[in-house]
Amino acid sequence: MNAHTLLGISVSVLLCACSSTQDTAMSSASLSVTAASLEDIHSVSPGLARIKSQTIDSEVWSRPGLSLRDRSIVTLSALIARNQVDTLPSQIELAFKNGVTPAEVSEIITHLAFYSGIGNAMSAVLATQPVFAQHGIDSTQLPAAQGNLLPMNEQSEAERAARVEASFGAIAPGVVALTTDALFRDLWLRPGLSPRDRGLVTVSALVAAGNLAQVPVHLNKAMDNGLTRVEASEALTQLAFYAGWPNVFSAMSVVKDVFAMRPDAQQDQ
Amino acid sequence: MNAHTLLGISVSVLLCACSSTQDTAMSSASLSVTAASLEDIHSVSPGLARIKSQTIDSEVWSRPGLSLRDRSIVTLSALIARNQVDTLPSQIELAFKNGVTPAEVSEIITHLAFYSGIGNAMSAVLATQPVFAQHGIDSTQLPAAQGNLLPMNEQSEAERAARVEASFGAIAPGVVALTTDALFRDLWLRPGLSPRDRGLVTVSALVAAGNLAQVPVHLNKAMDNGLTRVEASEALTQLAFYAGWPNVFSAMSVVKDVFAMRPDAQQDQ
Amino acid sequence: MNAHTLLGISVSVLLCACSSTQDTAMSSASLSVTAASLEDIHSVSPGLARIKSQTIDSEVWSRPGLSLRDRSIVTLSALIARNQVDTLPSQIELAFKNGVTPAEVSEIITHLAFYSGIGNAMSAVLATQPVFAQHGIDSTQLPAAQGNLLPMNEQSEAERAARVEASFGAIAPGVVALTTDALFRDLWLRPGLSPRDRGLVTVSALVAAGNLAQVPVHLNKAMDNGLTRVEASEALTQLAFYAGWPNVFSAMSVVKDVFAMRPDAQQDQ
Repeated sequence: MNAHTLLGISVSVLLCACSSTQDTAMSSASLSVTAASLEDIHSVSPGLARIKSQTIDSEVWSRPGLSLRDRSIVTLSALIARNQVDTLPSQIELAFKNGVTPAEVSEIITHLAFYSGIGNAMSAVLATQPVFAQHGIDSTQLPAAQGNLLPMNEQSEAERAARVEASFGAIAPGVVALTTDALFRDLWLRPGLSPRDRGLVTVSALVAAGNLAQVPVHLNKAMDNGLTRVEASEALTQLAFYAGWPNVFSAMSVVKDVFAMRPDAQQDQ
Repeated sequence: MNAHTLLGISVSVLLCACSSTQDTAMSSASLSVTAASLEDIHSVSPGLARIKSQTIDSEVWSRPGLSLRDRSIVTLSALIARNQVDTLPSQIELAFKNGVTPAEVSEIITHLAFYSGIGNAMSAVLATQPVFAQHGIDSTQLPAAQGNLLPMNEQSEAERAARVEASFGAIAPGVVALTTDALFRDLWLRPGLSPRDRGLVTVSALVAAGNLAQVPVHLNKAMDNGLTRVEASEALTQLAFYAGWPNVFSAMSVVKDVFAMRPDAQQDQ
Repeated sequence: MNAHTLLGISVSVLLCACSSTQDTAMSSASLSVTAASLEDIHSVSPGLARIKSQTIDSEVWSRPGLSLRDRSIVTLSALIARNQVDTLPSQIELAFKNGVTPAEVSEIITHLAFYSGIGNAMSAVLATQPVFAQHGIDSTQLPAAQGNLLPMNEQSEAERAARVEASFGAIAPGVVALTTDALFRDLWLRPGLSPRDRGLVTVSALVAAGNLAQVPVHLNKAMDNGLTRVEASEALTQLAFYAGWPNVFSAMSVVKDVFAMRPDAQQDQ
């Protein structure tokens, strides 16, 4: 038996189904969890089929505090960070319905090549390619390979670079140099994804992969760029299902400390 | 080349082979490690083929202290937690031979949808479906979507809920509410899997995925529900091979502390 | 759609392409990152295609301080540890061009069966088998299943065994016994891979999978066996791309402490 062939079939079916479903968040949300149909799930676990339709698709995705667009960004980031590309095509279809643009999906993959590893990004490329093809999306509609960059706060970047150089310059000069040149003076300045969205993608990927040591710096940066406490909190609710309870419970302690140390609680509301 | 097609073939072969092997733990254990045949393994690593047949299948699976049934539960949990579904079909076949029921396999997947993420559970659904089909298992033989729940210790659940609310209620109210409603007032009370077995599944998945922060609470709960020290210890031996030495070495320190802090060492023997 | 079938196709294409490319590190390095062609990547993310060709293939792989052979060992170890077998065939082809022998590839898989789990090794077996077949490599050219072992420092092994027995002998006797018998009195003494290379494989796998607790003992052992500080540092640069920035940033703190506590900084240069 070949789970992946079965999967390929179910996905095609779902993609067809998709174009004929009424274009509402909930109807598309029923595509959101996996490439396995509700019947597939019911045939192995009736309980899980009930949880998927009643709890995840109906309750979690429609919770207030985080937009459907942002829930799709959190979910795509978690899937790519965990290399779970089987469900990526149907989640990209849902993301389109929820207002994530193809250019943003492209840039999320580019961003996670650094934060989840090039291998995860390459698997995401192969899973995304047929969806883009089906929608007639070509590279002219995607963020350019290179071009205008967003303005940078030279002082804060100089401080970040000095901090990392002081800590690790003598240990891993290659990592330190590439962190400045490839990440903070290139990737983070690419206009294809807003700094606030990049922060949401990064924090979601870190929590989903259990890389909690980097959460404080990136959650603070995301909140400085406009992510609210309520949005960060609801991202954790979304991640509980897409990254598993243990990763989220471990992350809650870290997020709690970050919230507590933010200078002005009000500015984050 | 397509490893997954090769794999599909080897699995089918194995499933056929399976029905014709004498129904003993050892003969079925030779199916247990992977969908790759011993010849496949020998063609790439003669040393690994020797280790598989001599050490893992013959020595590890037949160690005293943990039943073959429990070793299958530990192994299925580790595979699902690590999203290694390639070997899941042959391991489910072995689990059936070792006394794990289809209803229990179904409920293990439902349980790990929460503890390993819905994506891992969905991949497990697609890998399990053909095995259930081949055995003529339909949803009427599986735990109901919803129904009678096991009795609950209202006081200890109220204490747990209060503890989590106090710690994280203000940070992630959505996670806290769903932890009570979906996990402790629903999932953990489903009769398809005994609380002791649920604990073994949870601890195995936590160790296999490196989520050690949650091991103390869940190992204590599993032992309160009847898992013995010897069984927990042997689960680590099984996991050393199925989750890798580093995850188990990190877990041993946590397990050691849990054992040391158990009120009555004798009750756990 | 079936990413794995697409993938199968692209890999075959690449393997053909491979034999016709001029045999230089750079031309083969263009095969190195993934089974997705540069066109595949460009169709989903032009930015990522630029980063792959300009930064990873041209800049990272050609950095001084770590040989192409060692970069291939680090990369293969990271891919197997992260179970990213899609790109393994093209990376094995590159490893051959970079001077890694089939016997060493075979032994890396055997080694990681213990350090990344048997499931990862089995997936690696299925991904490697067609590459070995295409090169006419059979088991007679691979390390024997069993045979002469390297000489062992009985005293340091006795000390290691005593240390682990004292810490965990009462908690997990099975793990402790198998650590001695299967790992330190067998696997680590197999002549198919030098102790220094085994150390590089182990440390790369630990960093790639986020198992940082074991890095100090294994990095020290690798350096005692000849791995230099510059090589360890450059392995981190390679891993930043193949295991992701977060895993490497977390590892840098651990590596920094190991370097600081090495008795004689000079001997490691």
